[in-house]
Amino acid sequence: MSTADTTPSAGPSTHALPGYHDTKDAQLKRLRRIEGQVRGIARMVEEEQYCIDVLTQVSAATKALQAVALGLLDEHMSHCLVQAVATGGEERDEKLREASQAIARLVRS
Amino acid sequence: MSTADTTPSAGPSTHALPGYHDTKDAQLKRLRRIEGQVRGIARMVEEEQYCIDVLTQVSAATKALQAVALGLLDEHMSHCLVQAVATGGEERDEKLREASQAIARLVRS
Amino acid sequence: MSTADTTPSAGPSTHALPGYHDTKDAQLKRLRRIEGQVRGIARMVEEEQYCIDVLTQVSAATKALQAVALGLLDEHMSHCLVQAVATGGEERDEKLREASQAIARLVRS
Amino acid sequence: MSTADTTPSAGPSTHALPGYHDTKDAQLKRLRRIEGQVRGIARMVEEEQYCIDVLTQVSAATKALQAVALGLLDEHMSHCLVQAVATGGEERDEKLREASQAIARLVRS
Repeated sequence: MSTADTTPSAGPSTHALPGYHDTKDAQLKRLRRIEGQVRGIARMVEEEQYCIDVLTQVSAATKALQAVALGLLDEHMSHCLVQAVATGGEERDEKLREASQAIARLVRS
Repeated sequence: MSTADTTPSAGPSTHALPGYHDTKDAQLKRLRRIEGQVRGIARMVEEEQYCIDVLTQVSAATKALQAVALGLLDEHMSHCLVQAVATGGEERDEKLREASQAIARLVRS
Repeated sequence: MSTADTTPSAGPSTHALPGYHDTKDAQLKRLRRIEGQVRGIARMVEEEQYCIDVLTQVSAATKALQAVALGLLDEHMSHCLVQAVATGGEERDEKLREASQAIARLVRS
Repeated sequence: MSTADTTPSAGPSTHALPGYHDTKDAQLKRLRRIEGQVRGIARMVEEEQYCIDVLTQVSAATKALQAVALGLLDEHMSHCLVQAVATGGEERDEKLREASQAIARLVRS
């Protein structure tokens, strides 16, 4: 559990640390690699490289973004959602609703 | 038609210009916006913002990448594929196979 | 099979009823409509209807299946997962892992 | 090429046979298998089987539907689209637009 028992955060939730706190460095590394991938795709377009080769890289970057999303969601459920369930009541219901909506956005994107 | 005015081209195809030649600036603009989105997501993670807010941005960036892919594919079909069909023979079959595979990667990513 | 009709269940979970127990009729109704959609698509193919019209119906059926999946997942989280978190320990960890894997399969399908 | 040169069909396009004419039996077989999968999922829900097991089958049926769609699209491009490009003019532009829209629906479903 990475969630803070100490300071009750400001912000959209009652915890101070995000679910991905413990894996933050790994997530950042992946995001920076994806940023590089997208910059690489822009360079390919700039150099007028072949459409299909550009598309292959776009598919790869999309998959990498999905992997980040699945990682964040997993951490969110293991930490924030677990904590909200322990808290119970409106906090639990709100977090469940929020997670469901995030999953729906992910499945539909 | 944006295909080869000048040199017969080396590379994976027989045309010198990619299908997206005429919309290159628009594609580049979108890709740079997506690069900024991904950098923004990294910043959110750096600042330990709330998981669900990060996920919302990841979904938005994924959708934006898909829109770029659909745009590139549309241009590819209208230009490169149309030209390959006019050429006929092995060139046509190869370009059809290639397009089908790119679409499958896109649908599955 | 983890669901028991009588006894409080052996199997991968400690509850006798699935998360969708209360919305079972609605889920069944949606699934039967989708079964009808798929049968309708087969009929279109049988009658050699136009490819694009068939594809439109395949996309609609795919979206309807995704909606069922999101509904089931939502119920699963609100009931089975919440209960497993209350139970704690290995049961909680197992259910979280299982839910993450189900979400990943859904996002990638 | 399965497209009819002889009778100029009624219907949304100028060809008499759909792109999947030659692979019709294979497509029908897949669709009937999917219909069976969906009926199986309804039975699982009827029997109140475990949520995650139901979700696994829904993901499998979704993937199978996508495979049908990719197969139909491939045949459509190799036959109907190729023929429309040969015809040229408005017919070509209309078929390209239509294919792009079908691909977009598929990617977003």
